[in-house]
Amino acid sequence: MTPMRYVLLVLGLLISLHYILSVSHEEYARKTSLSQFLPSKHEPPYKTPIPEYYGNNTRRANAAIVILARNGDLSGILESVKQLEDRFNKKFHYPYVFLNEEPFSDEFKRRTTEITSALTEYGLIPRDHWYQPVWIDEEKARAAREDMIKHNVIYGHSVPYRNMCRFNSGYFFRQELLMKYDYYWRVEPSIKLYCDIDYDPFLFMQDNKKVYGFTISLYEYIETIPTLWDATKEFIKANPQYLPKDNGIGFLSDDGGETYNKCHFWSNFEIGDLRFWRSEAYTKFFEHLDEKGGFYYERWGDAPVHSIGAALFAHKDQIHFFEDIGYRHEPFQHCPQGASHSKGKCWCDENDNFDREWYSCLNKYDDLFK
Amino acid sequence: MTPMRYVLLVLGLLISLHYILSVSHEEYARKTSLSQFLPSKHEPPYKTPIPEYYGNNTRRANAAIVILARNGDLSGILESVKQLEDRFNKKFHYPYVFLNEEPFSDEFKRRTTEITSALTEYGLIPRDHWYQPVWIDEEKARAAREDMIKHNVIYGHSVPYRNMCRFNSGYFFRQELLMKYDYYWRVEPSIKLYCDIDYDPFLFMQDNKKVYGFTISLYEYIETIPTLWDATKEFIKANPQYLPKDNGIGFLSDDGGETYNKCHFWSNFEIGDLRFWRSEAYTKFFEHLDEKGGFYYERWGDAPVHSIGAALFAHKDQIHFFEDIGYRHEPFQHCPQGASHSKGKCWCDENDNFDREWYSCLNKYDDLFK
Repeated sequence: MTPMRYVLLVLGLLISLHYILSVSHEEYARKTSLSQFLPSKHEPPYKTPIPEYYGNNTRRANAAIVILARNGDLSGILESVKQLEDRFNKKFHYPYVFLNEEPFSDEFKRRTTEITSALTEYGLIPRDHWYQPVWIDEEKARAAREDMIKHNVIYGHSVPYRNMCRFNSGYFFRQELLMKYDYYWRVEPSIKLYCDIDYDPFLFMQDNKKVYGFTISLYEYIETIPTLWDATKEFIKANPQYLPKDNGIGFLSDDGGETYNKCHFWSNFEIGDLRFWRSEAYTKFFEHLDEKGGFYYERWGDAPVHSIGAALFAHKDQIHFFEDIGYRHEPFQHCPQGASHSKGKCWCDENDNFDREWYSCLNKYDDLFK
Repeated sequence: MTPMRYVLLVLGLLISLHYILSVSHEEYARKTSLSQFLPSKHEPPYKTPIPEYYGNNTRRANAAIVILARNGDLSGILESVKQLEDRFNKKFHYPYVFLNEEPFSDEFKRRTTEITSALTEYGLIPRDHWYQPVWIDEEKARAAREDMIKHNVIYGHSVPYRNMCRFNSGYFFRQELLMKYDYYWRVEPSIKLYCDIDYDPFLFMQDNKKVYGFTISLYEYIETIPTLWDATKEFIKANPQYLPKDNGIGFLSDDGGETYNKCHFWSNFEIGDLRFWRSEAYTKFFEHLDEKGGFYYERWGDAPVHSIGAALFAHKDQIHFFEDIGYRHEPFQHCPQGASHSKGKCWCDENDNFDREWYSCLNKYDDLFK
């Protein structure tokens, strides 16, 4: 044998060993595969880490933090705002817009101004953006509420809750104080934010043309939306031009749009593009739904309405899962896993995470990109 | 009448009016008094604002954050540490020393290391610093515990609680990992820190020769310390040389030392000088108390023991009330008032504040400086 033959023999043995290990050991295959250096076409976009760029520059998006609150929510609001400041906004100084159907008290304004060095603005919601419209048949609405009370539907009895759902579905993004902004982060009282957010999520949304960001998705109670999907199908049929080809309807329906699988993004957390809600497509969609009266004759939530809007009228890759934002709104939480957990210096328990619970819809979102 | 007489008449009237208002209206007197521009000799030191200097320099004290914890305390510890980082330590990067009577789990070490960019160290407490000494008469100790159970004394049944109280009274400051440090901040699980601390409290303590800092003071349950004051008086009588002339005994006793008024600083929060606890005076005092066996035959807490030590062996102005640190340990909280509330961007409610509750001893502390 010549030395060249030895070299070829050893090389051949090594290549065979690599092949055998690749087939038999998944971990080995993953760690040595060349494809790890290429973006996968079959992975959801959130698997690609957010570039360092969004942590280190002075550019800002045209964005605000939006908080719908009552004066009585003050202590829970302060808890939420302090965490937003700690995790994110001490670094980025985005303004706050507080909205209320009644005037904010001096105490509310003083305390929320004191707690941040960012701008705080306070808006009064016009009456016709909040209260039940006169053309709603109150007899019919009351009968629906009484029926829901009998069936123990959560908030089934409540008119103020319905006002809020309709406001969030069709009006928050049209409030005067918000008209100057392009992006928003919706925040509720008494949430928890577990991880440092060292980059600017608004700028990331803007530069990457994202329109809707979420942290938790789950199934809706069908009792609250029995005819919402029928109304949606009616709209789609009459206005097919509003749906881009690569929309996210696969998140909403497992049978090509025939039935609604009840998946929705949990809208108590949202980072989104206000201009998307102000678009012709979503505006007409909301008007169509509003005319049906389902906000009062049933109890349509802004979560399924926003989710249907986003999944139908946006390109699917414009919907972003903020995997790196640790978030809790009772009774569920998303806790970032692995590298994003340590990067964010999160204080939540990785094992307490809604993502892969049976009631989570994250797998439907992932499937959009398969 | 000449014009000069008019002027004198008007001046005279104004002065009389000022005098009348000063006597009859306390607020008017306070607002117009010249003495407001002079430092008062009769005000406790915390009324003087902390100089900006302690917020803006690169000097550091030789200090550590000290946390006594068990592996099972992890989630509460992470909550506390995250807040410490947010409020204070992201800026100052003081190291953490974790102490446990059992070895810390890998999980505990991983999570607590991940959550901060500061140094974290983990110490195992030597057995004889923690467990009940052999020379304690266990029959007598058990009888005492059973008696306390009958009388519903909090933790009255517990030996581990007694171990902890004795450890905190006499041993924490002698742990190997702490020997290299001069100052400490004691932190417990599941506390709340309400306000941004934009200055370095350790450096403030060091430069101003403070030895003990507190946020809440209150009355002790007499059932837990029936003979503690007798033991203390015995020590004072035998060792009067350890008490400086301007000590703080007035905080402990309303009758010149004859009886203990049960006031103590709540020791779950402490910022202090480790060298003070390692001093000859306190060391001998602790040895004297330990020999009495009251940590086991009664249920002497580290709070009254530290408080008595600080009030007897330090100059009274070496004990500092951290008015600007918003702090909650269930079930009490100190919420900074007025200017310190807004300066600290506190999220606690100013009206929920223990300082002037009937069960608070802050007035006794204030009286030291009258």
